[in-house]
Amino acid sequence: MKHLEKLIRRVIGRVNVNLREHAFDVEPYLTGIIPPEKFVRFYAFYGLTLHHPLYFHFHNSSLAGSYFLGKCTVEHSVLYKSDIRGDELKWRGEIFKSDDFEIPLYEDEKIRIRDSFLVKTLVHNNSHNPENPEEFLIQNTVAMHYANIHGSTVEGAFLGPFSTVDLTTVRNCVVGAFAYVQSGEAVHRRVDPGQIIIRAPDAFSFSYRFHPEDLRQYIDIKPGGSPTGIFMDFVESKKSLFESAFEVVESRSTIPVPTGASLSRYAVVTGSTTISENVLVAQRAYLEDAWLGKGSNAQENCTIVSSRLEGNNITAHGGKIIHASLGEKVFVGFNSFLRGQPYSPLTIGAGSIVMPHTIIDVDEPLEIPAEHLVWGCIRSRRDLARHTLPLRRVAETEGELVHGAMILQGSGARFVDAFRHRIEHILEANGAYFDGRHNRGHAQKARQISFNIIQPYPAGTLKGLYPTIDISLPLAAMGIQKSAGNRAG
Amino acid sequence: MKHLEKLIRRVIGRVNVNLREHAFDVEPYLTGIIPPEKFVRFYAFYGLTLHHPLYFHFHNSSLAGSYFLGKCTVEHSVLYKSDIRGDELKWRGEIFKSDDFEIPLYEDEKIRIRDSFLVKTLVHNNSHNPENPEEFLIQNTVAMHYANIHGSTVEGAFLGPFSTVDLTTVRNCVVGAFAYVQSGEAVHRRVDPGQIIIRAPDAFSFSYRFHPEDLRQYIDIKPGGSPTGIFMDFVESKKSLFESAFEVVESRSTIPVPTGASLSRYAVVTGSTTISENVLVAQRAYLEDAWLGKGSNAQENCTIVSSRLEGNNITAHGGKIIHASLGEKVFVGFNSFLRGQPYSPLTIGAGSIVMPHTIIDVDEPLEIPAEHLVWGCIRSRRDLARHTLPLRRVAETEGELVHGAMILQGSGARFVDAFRHRIEHILEANGAYFDGRHNRGHAQKARQISFNIIQPYPAGTLKGLYPTIDISLPLAAMGIQKSAGNRAG
Repeated sequence: MKHLEKLIRRVIGRVNVNLREHAFDVEPYLTGIIPPEKFVRFYAFYGLTLHHPLYFHFHNSSLAGSYFLGKCTVEHSVLYKSDIRGDELKWRGEIFKSDDFEIPLYEDEKIRIRDSFLVKTLVHNNSHNPENPEEFLIQNTVAMHYANIHGSTVEGAFLGPFSTVDLTTVRNCVVGAFAYVQSGEAVHRRVDPGQIIIRAPDAFSFSYRFHPEDLRQYIDIKPGGSPTGIFMDFVESKKSLFESAFEVVESRSTIPVPTGASLSRYAVVTGSTTISENVLVAQRAYLEDAWLGKGSNAQENCTIVSSRLEGNNITAHGGKIIHASLGEKVFVGFNSFLRGQPYSPLTIGAGSIVMPHTIIDVDEPLEIPAEHLVWGCIRSRRDLARHTLPLRRVAETEGELVHGAMILQGSGARFVDAFRHRIEHILEANGAYFDGRHNRGHAQKARQISFNIIQPYPAGTLKGLYPTIDISLPLAAMGIQKSAGNRAG
Repeated sequence: MKHLEKLIRRVIGRVNVNLREHAFDVEPYLTGIIPPEKFVRFYAFYGLTLHHPLYFHFHNSSLAGSYFLGKCTVEHSVLYKSDIRGDELKWRGEIFKSDDFEIPLYEDEKIRIRDSFLVKTLVHNNSHNPENPEEFLIQNTVAMHYANIHGSTVEGAFLGPFSTVDLTTVRNCVVGAFAYVQSGEAVHRRVDPGQIIIRAPDAFSFSYRFHPEDLRQYIDIKPGGSPTGIFMDFVESKKSLFESAFEVVESRSTIPVPTGASLSRYAVVTGSTTISENVLVAQRAYLEDAWLGKGSNAQENCTIVSSRLEGNNITAHGGKIIHASLGEKVFVGFNSFLRGQPYSPLTIGAGSIVMPHTIIDVDEPLEIPAEHLVWGCIRSRRDLARHTLPLRRVAETEGELVHGAMILQGSGARFVDAFRHRIEHILEANGAYFDGRHNRGHAQKARQISFNIIQPYPAGTLKGLYPTIDISLPLAAMGIQKSAGNRAG
């Protein structure tokens, strides 16, 4: 264990230097957070397909339980059951469009993680940063339980549990628990727990903050302890089922997987669950008595229990839906927690948008109409009015709209358009519109994937460390993969 | 599949050039021998410990189901469920003694496999070759089902099914099915099926040949077909049980593993089986209703069914023992097939040596006394006399001893000594004499091992090929592993 402890100390030192202006010490958040035995108990794995550029390099790192896809280097880092998903990495030769710029790529894009400690963190790389489009960098960073690093370059940051940085370049920031930041850039900032910020320069700005008392019941973290609250209790209760899924090398689906759909062998499916055509169920998704309509997707770390989701629903990374009924094309954003009760279901009408980091937790029946925007914390019918608006009404905003604790400034139309555009992008990319020939997406491509499994040293001073590993194309010829992939597709 | 087919054609071409003087074409032996789907069905895996030098490099190869340990490179090769065991690789800084030479090693020894096709082959590297002590090379070679390449450099060879090359440098040779060659060097030779040759220059020479009619019932191979016979039927009957063992990532032992013993998680143990202290059960060993006394070892691909083996027994690679009772320190050599029947057990007395590639297959009770040498093909009590001699009698030989079809020339004492010396080496190396502190061997070291699992491309033109993979030490510092290993030990 000696070298792993040294590695953790190294990461702590590097992150603290980056956060010195905040006088923020990550040490008490990391020390003892993962019992030493767990570093050798779980294996890391990476997916091998023809649809993702292949290159892995791991060095002086511990990767327990983590999942990798696409080009990736990990150096001097500790990742614990993190999902590093490079399935939207850009390829050499592509043109990356950002605002008015057209940037030709001279190399395949690569995810690069250095001197960082990511715990059960989800990294997804549809990266926005035009300044360094060939490298998606996460450096000198600590991300706590179920944080999302989504298309965001992060250098020198502490990301609290269940926080999300989305399409943002983050430098020298402390981001509180369950905060959500989508702001193009966030530099030298301290973002409070439960603060939601969505900002597009010269277009709009959305902001909301959870009441600290409400939030603490769901997620809280104090130096020297692990995160606590309903979110943690909820995910911990599913843990043992996932451990079984990881014990077998190949697993056969227990439910029918229709044409164009894919069900990750690292997802857990129980009860009476049905998935329809073109559905994507990602790794570490949990489905129990769930019905998913055509083209719906259940992304990483999401949970759908005793719920019916009509076609083209999106449950984003970490979204949780319990005892609910959702109409066509409802979007449920990152880490949202929507919980009805068996005799008090939650109903959401078609086309509604549930903002990332929304909590709906009710024990009376609750109905959200179609085409509404929903945000914040809704614990009862009474709360609903202050946390929802018709999308039409939002789109009419020019200047400022204040509704409860929410403030929307700028163009409401562009705000709604940005969401709608993103929802379409997600459905297209995930293959919701596949017709048997055209519009192939992740759901169709993910059907054929191999997983390579890497384990750490089991004992001795290197215990918990993984060997240095390089993985690359089987043939020396460059450029073969893209064309081979296309032929296979 | 396109690239894998191309790779197989490449290997065929290279081997045929090496065997042109024999006008031997390996093509009909390889074509269609493994159904294409099987190349993607099984994963390869390599063991990670602190007791073996770490370095792997795989390039442009298919490795389905193969096992690796220690420093190894595989290039432009097809390995199918082969066991490549580098646990006696020499370390940098060691002195390699060969005859009167003392050769200091400047690099860690490495197994290097190039342009070869090995099917269910076992490679064990206690290599004898003093000319190139830092590289154990297998090149331009086809090895068929359950061939053993044991400490033997092989360049340009066809090794028939169940053949063994043992401590021999093999160049441009065709070795027939079930032939056994231990001769220091074998160059430009064609060795008949069932030919047994053990030769130590200036010391002794042992030779025996199975009757072709007898042998064909046990193992036969014709161009254009897979091997046939009792050996194949026997191993095929156990196949599905091994496939289950490979389906789980970690498996817990179903029987108690006492102090100093180790049971590979890739061994299959069924029925009422007991292993005693310091027992080593290697991967792909099969134990059913077996009792193994203290310090015994069951090596790769061996099978022990309904048998009791007293302390310090050795069942070498591929040895099969069914309905038998073996006294203390009986040695059963490579690929021997010893089969009694439920009411007609086979008994072998303490200290006897069953030569490699011996067949005893009886349906009447048969007893071999203690301290005897056994060889050849014994199908009844009548056969016994012509295929066994007291070791004392063998050791008295000077000049020539002819007994049945066996001819021993030279010094019988040195012949018996060589075997006894090797038996002691195996027991020591495997940890049979471990006392809780001293004499640690493979059985004790193998207790802590991780396995990394690598899978091939699942589809497309690269189907069945594995990515290029490099695996090395987690820390840049050279020389750390040996010392870390010692501390862990």
